[in-house]
Amino acid sequence: MIVGAGFGGLACAQALGGHPIRITVIDRHNYHLFVPLLYQVATAALSPADVAEPIRKILRRHDNIRVLMGEVSGVDVAGKRVLVEGEGFVAYDRLVLATGSKYNYFGNEHWAAYAPGLKTVSDARQIRASVLLGFERAESSRDPEEQAALMTSVIVGGGPTGVEMAGAIAELARWSLRRDFRNIDPRSARVILVEAGERILAPFPERLASYAHARLERMGVEVRTGQAVRDIRAEGAQIGEEFIKAGTMVWGAGIAASPAARWLGIDSDRIGRVPVGHNLAVEGVEDVFAIGDTAIALDDQGKPLPGLAQVAKQQGEHLGKSLGANLERGVPMAPFRFRNRGNTAVVGRSAAIFDFGKRQLKGWFAWMLWAVIHVYLLVAFEQRLLVSVQWFWRWITYQSGARLIAYDSREVRDPEPLARASSPEAAEKTSEAGSS
Amino acid sequence: MIVGAGFGGLACAQALGGHPIRITVIDRHNYHLFVPLLYQVATAALSPADVAEPIRKILRRHDNIRVLMGEVSGVDVAGKRVLVEGEGFVAYDRLVLATGSKYNYFGNEHWAAYAPGLKTVSDARQIRASVLLGFERAESSRDPEEQAALMTSVIVGGGPTGVEMAGAIAELARWSLRRDFRNIDPRSARVILVEAGERILAPFPERLASYAHARLERMGVEVRTGQAVRDIRAEGAQIGEEFIKAGTMVWGAGIAASPAARWLGIDSDRIGRVPVGHNLAVEGVEDVFAIGDTAIALDDQGKPLPGLAQVAKQQGEHLGKSLGANLERGVPMAPFRFRNRGNTAVVGRSAAIFDFGKRQLKGWFAWMLWAVIHVYLLVAFEQRLLVSVQWFWRWITYQSGARLIAYDSREVRDPEPLARASSPEAAEKTSEAGSS
Repeated sequence: MIVGAGFGGLACAQALGGHPIRITVIDRHNYHLFVPLLYQVATAALSPADVAEPIRKILRRHDNIRVLMGEVSGVDVAGKRVLVEGEGFVAYDRLVLATGSKYNYFGNEHWAAYAPGLKTVSDARQIRASVLLGFERAESSRDPEEQAALMTSVIVGGGPTGVEMAGAIAELARWSLRRDFRNIDPRSARVILVEAGERILAPFPERLASYAHARLERMGVEVRTGQAVRDIRAEGAQIGEEFIKAGTMVWGAGIAASPAARWLGIDSDRIGRVPVGHNLAVEGVEDVFAIGDTAIALDDQGKPLPGLAQVAKQQGEHLGKSLGANLERGVPMAPFRFRNRGNTAVVGRSAAIFDFGKRQLKGWFAWMLWAVIHVYLLVAFEQRLLVSVQWFWRWITYQSGARLIAYDSREVRDPEPLARASSPEAAEKTSEAGSS
Repeated sequence: MIVGAGFGGLACAQALGGHPIRITVIDRHNYHLFVPLLYQVATAALSPADVAEPIRKILRRHDNIRVLMGEVSGVDVAGKRVLVEGEGFVAYDRLVLATGSKYNYFGNEHWAAYAPGLKTVSDARQIRASVLLGFERAESSRDPEEQAALMTSVIVGGGPTGVEMAGAIAELARWSLRRDFRNIDPRSARVILVEAGERILAPFPERLASYAHARLERMGVEVRTGQAVRDIRAEGAQIGEEFIKAGTMVWGAGIAASPAARWLGIDSDRIGRVPVGHNLAVEGVEDVFAIGDTAIALDDQGKPLPGLAQVAKQQGEHLGKSLGANLERGVPMAPFRFRNRGNTAVVGRSAAIFDFGKRQLKGWFAWMLWAVIHVYLLVAFEQRLLVSVQWFWRWITYQSGARLIAYDSREVRDPEPLARASSPEAAEKTSEAGSS
């Protein structure tokens, strides 16, 4: 049984496809989400369906794989069964936990209502609505101070997601929306990237990070390093001594693993990851494995592997093959070894950085490489084709493809933001023009 | 001032673009929705962004047009101003009401919670989630009766929307999902189209309607004419004497105009439409015009014009030109004359009907014509290109492009279906696998 159909779980299932082993894949969504491109959904460049693919569709040719949509809420280790909400217990022989991570607010979970992370389709829709509604409200406002606040975005965390979000919002304002308003100039929008550490993109070499830093500033992003977020409220963020009023806030400042360790009743590391051995088995619990952001695995030098999609994917593939060989032919579980395929981040239109360990790339060519690789990695052929067409078109026209505000205008800051928009009362009030 | 950016309002604004007249367009959404293709969003073929285009983007080249996102809730006829929620009053010299229609439940508004109409992006998302979740739940159910109920769809109303929905759901089950499940056979899904009248597609000639009827039955749709819906509950629909348990219900059985007549304080017809003269001016109220589904206009024979997109569009264009000439050069307002461009409905993969009045078309060629016209009519070039590519690809592969379930699985039948899915608590519980 594989819990979670992210990069790790899916790779594991695919490696086991066609084997004479019965596999169940459980995920709370019916789709696999290509998280590295989610920032493009949040910034109105792509639609959710462009970066999501039905899990059933991906796995359908493997008759030995069953897909269940459901939310796992616990594991009965002794009874070897998993608790699925609304379904009851489902038994397993071997269990693979690939349940990923969420953003870590370090004890300030109430900030999430104002500064969502970027992990789910719903997060991306909320951020998109917030950015676009900021401009809509600024256009109809007559108060210059309010207008400025509505057009201000604060991105917390200078990792790849933060850098990509900051760059994409700056581009949206400077190019896509440039001519769309009458009272405001979207180019005056402020985008502030806040990083508590000394520099942005800490996992990257200094040279690439300072290139990205300079590039972001050239696009108009205010990069503030060495400044910590002290508070986040509905109106804005307290950054060091300064309170910045902002219409949009995005959180990307830290990761916490899913509650797998709690399910297993074992100790985790500081951010909730489950310790696994070299063969990815959870230490001290029989027949349970953990991969991706759920696990803390060490490399040959004893250093923890980073929380990257490629790590999860390689672990999943390795574990799938290893489990297949073990179950079919009794081969012992092989140790996992991570091969670095290169670490990348995009810094706006036609600029990216690539770190391959020994070699490094930056600029236009890195961006081309990034685009080719990401289109290739998108699961299905249709998606590849569509995303290519859209990117190409947007690249020529500086336009954004998916600028729908899918949240009710009054609800973005509400803790239940989509409630009224989709309630029957709201449907009744509908005043859209257009007949069939 | 133009209220509503559907087909009518948008055509009116475009006809006035570039004139030395200040125009304000108000809509509650930031996008124009191409409603004739909304059924494809509801049946997982297209994404919302494929059939929606930002109003600002469409109108941006006209410097005399200002776009406001906001909800109109009243008109002060004496003071010549419109009440916009959260904005206060906005003054007008001439007012065009193009606020469209919603579905009519004929006094049973509580049915809307279980059988939504198909007018908004939110409706389409709800129906899509309901259809797809029906299959997901049937797959994990062990009760054959429950499985059958979950895979049953009841479409109320045999107009073009009902016919298109029924055909598209039948195709989704028979083709796109065919190989995706292990416990159920999606091809056994029931699709029931209920029409209270004697035959489906009443506005079309008998010959075309019976072709569509036969075609639907060949696709496995149960077409039930002369049967009225007596009750709709969470579990299903009472159709005549029979209670049919259904996982998905869609309402398309009648139209009611938006509350424009109430705003103006005048008498409307039975379904809320505002009577207008031949020049589209609202009778008895100065400087107010109404078009599209908001208005009841009579043709030369004294018959009311049908509630079609082409009527709204032609009226909008005519009114825009006429108002422009009137305001700029004092030319009297010209009478509107509807030119029938052909009435159409799609009956599944590669079959459609077309009624041009004297000439009629059906079958494959009509479908091709339908596809070409609809791609052409989609507002922006990018959309045309993308939708063409997607359609072509899906046509070859029998696949569906947008199968995301965007609703929380537990919420579809809840009156506030998206609440928990997008609340911070839900975001916290997120267990998606996949790292950045």
